[in-house]
Amino acid sequence: MSKNKSEPHEVPKETGRIEAFSDGVIGIALTLLVLEIRVPRDLPQGVSLASALLNQWPSYMAFLTSFTTVGLMWINHHNMFKYIRSVDNPLLILNTILLMGISLVPFQTALLAEYLQKPEAQTAAIVYGGMFTVIGFLFFLFWRYASRHLLVPDITPHTLRIINRRNGLVGSILGLLTALLALINAHLSLLIYIIGVLFYGWLLLGKPSEGEQS
Amino acid sequence: MSKNKSEPHEVPKETGRIEAFSDGVIGIALTLLVLEIRVPRDLPQGVSLASALLNQWPSYMAFLTSFTTVGLMWINHHNMFKYIRSVDNPLLILNTILLMGISLVPFQTALLAEYLQKPEAQTAAIVYGGMFTVIGFLFFLFWRYASRHLLVPDITPHTLRIINRRNGLVGSILGLLTALLALINAHLSLLIYIIGVLFYGWLLLGKPSEGEQS
Amino acid sequence: MSKNKSEPHEVPKETGRIEAFSDGVIGIALTLLVLEIRVPRDLPQGVSLASALLNQWPSYMAFLTSFTTVGLMWINHHNMFKYIRSVDNPLLILNTILLMGISLVPFQTALLAEYLQKPEAQTAAIVYGGMFTVIGFLFFLFWRYASRHLLVPDITPHTLRIINRRNGLVGSILGLLTALLALINAHLSLLIYIIGVLFYGWLLLGKPSEGEQS
Amino acid sequence: MSKNKSEPHEVPKETGRIEAFSDGVIGIALTLLVLEIRVPRDLPQGVSLASALLNQWPSYMAFLTSFTTVGLMWINHHNMFKYIRSVDNPLLILNTILLMGISLVPFQTALLAEYLQKPEAQTAAIVYGGMFTVIGFLFFLFWRYASRHLLVPDITPHTLRIINRRNGLVGSILGLLTALLALINAHLSLLIYIIGVLFYGWLLLGKPSEGEQS
Repeated sequence: MSKNKSEPHEVPKETGRIEAFSDGVIGIALTLLVLEIRVPRDLPQGVSLASALLNQWPSYMAFLTSFTTVGLMWINHHNMFKYIRSVDNPLLILNTILLMGISLVPFQTALLAEYLQKPEAQTAAIVYGGMFTVIGFLFFLFWRYASRHLLVPDITPHTLRIINRRNGLVGSILGLLTALLALINAHLSLLIYIIGVLFYGWLLLGKPSEGEQS
Repeated sequence: MSKNKSEPHEVPKETGRIEAFSDGVIGIALTLLVLEIRVPRDLPQGVSLASALLNQWPSYMAFLTSFTTVGLMWINHHNMFKYIRSVDNPLLILNTILLMGISLVPFQTALLAEYLQKPEAQTAAIVYGGMFTVIGFLFFLFWRYASRHLLVPDITPHTLRIINRRNGLVGSILGLLTALLALINAHLSLLIYIIGVLFYGWLLLGKPSEGEQS
Repeated sequence: MSKNKSEPHEVPKETGRIEAFSDGVIGIALTLLVLEIRVPRDLPQGVSLASALLNQWPSYMAFLTSFTTVGLMWINHHNMFKYIRSVDNPLLILNTILLMGISLVPFQTALLAEYLQKPEAQTAAIVYGGMFTVIGFLFFLFWRYASRHLLVPDITPHTLRIINRRNGLVGSILGLLTALLALINAHLSLLIYIIGVLFYGWLLLGKPSEGEQS
Repeated sequence: MSKNKSEPHEVPKETGRIEAFSDGVIGIALTLLVLEIRVPRDLPQGVSLASALLNQWPSYMAFLTSFTTVGLMWINHHNMFKYIRSVDNPLLILNTILLMGISLVPFQTALLAEYLQKPEAQTAAIVYGGMFTVIGFLFFLFWRYASRHLLVPDITPHTLRIINRRNGLVGSILGLLTALLALINAHLSLLIYIIGVLFYGWLLLGKPSEGEQS
């Protein structure tokens, strides 16, 4: 939570509380996702609990996809704040708007889980992709402001460029692509989305050295 | 979370844990707001998911308005604690009462979303505005006590005056105005409330320099 | 959250994370209380929203009583940890058991709200008081262990005595009294409980000087 | 939360925020467990509230078992991070996957509570044990990566061996045993699980000296 405050030779970072607050909101949004997975009740005659559970696969898939996405968002948020030196009111407001977007993820996840196997899957997938487009764009706006006004002085142009590329725009484009593809085929669009998210996570995993420095 | 503790030349601040606890409660209240946005189920014959989603606009509007308000409350809470030096039992109790008010926001938000398009919109809007009046007043009481007994010594009268004006009273008056206007017209009163909240947020946004110092 | 870590001349306290975790659990238990207050839906013919809201007074009362109680528990937890120097596994386990008790408060609160105006009010009040008896006793056990093994060295016998008296036993006795009185009259027993809780809060409020030292 | 940052002579630990985030997610998963305990409503003729509450014993048992398990998981997480020096992207991702598993516990708990007294108890117990097998294995993977790349330099081989044994594998084996025994008898398997968890907790309790050093 509090960060780097103890280096006596540095200007103390004041970002502890905004990080903690964001951790709380993102963590709760993540954990509320489980509420969308229902325990099957009142099993119809001849249906076993096992098959009722298996029939709920859209709920599990939506849970896994959203949890992974929001988890990666948190890692991004974490990595951004490593380079943010101080906090001002515009940053607080941009962060609040970003958290507003993230806290809606349980809604779009429940929507997708409910309609993935129904004729209305297309609408649900468009909303799902569209919301991630918006959240990605909010990440982009947040970082744009922070990177111009509030960065630590010793950030290298290389690191900055990597974070610029990563933060928001990739997620935003992936979300938009998903929403557009859903106009053609909802299930295909979600498959692309999942592959995109896993690929993004794999990129992070495959760069431990950069992870250490960043 | 932990704050400014590492400057060896300063009196250590002891406010870390009360801030963390408040962050938790406010963050959860914010995130629970999403539970009030329901996934439309059992669509009536001939109603598309898209139109069912659009028909839920009062839920989205109530979510956005409440999230923005509570987000601004958190920013206020954050800004106040920058100047609070230490914690005593009365402050802990005043903070608990303040959090009690904030944790009720999901209820009044769900009430507004449920009744905004119904004949009972007036009652819902009065409760909505009235609750924010109370919370604003609790902010005022909290800051009144803190500013008299527990401030850091180096706060300037100018900063103090700005915070005094901001904390609680503005929100309290806006809430009261909303509740009173709702006696005439519920929708108009909520429009005024939203404009008021956005204006307040815009004021914060437009003062980055003060943000940096505060 | 993190506490007193910056005094270079002291043994660093290691209690930051257990406090943060406890803050999270207690804060969520507090905020979940609001879920028990239902928005009235499907108003019967001739019943206004205002009267439907007023008829829910047991929910509000149960919310206020439980929030106040858990808020005071958090203040106690906070005050205890000011004197706890380090953490060992038994303390972690005792703390987990204590949090288990606190996290059940939303259940007993919903139970009380549901049955306060019904013939079964007695059973609900006994459970309500009984659970607080148990939680108070868990506080007592926690502090008993902590005060024997893990306290900071510079605590005065006077402070220790005050905390000993406060932690758990008072709450435990009040809960037991409530449960026993409920055998005679449920409403009377809850009235006694509320008066007891408010009196306890008032005691804390009235001792700012001790608050500062403790 | 923030950790050991103030010792000027040590390399500062950077694990504060990942610990805080994990605390949040685990704490919320713990607290959401209470939502599975329902208030009995609409009592059938001739059934007292007391007997309706007693009939819900599977809910209480599932709550206690899951809370204890997740509480022990938190203690493990806490103890692991005492020895983790720094954070890289792979660790962040492994931690996110681990939290994903833990955040599903409220689902499997509700499933068990719903079906423990029904013919489908076997399926519910297999899912219950199976999920803990997975979570234990995720702990194992997490610690395997952390212990090879990111440990503080001064950890002794003895401590390392104890943590290795503890983290994940014990829980994983216990979960697997439960799932397998459930193929024979669901209630027996859960009894074994509960004994196993309590024994594990008792092992921690009985080693205060190691607790102090670890």
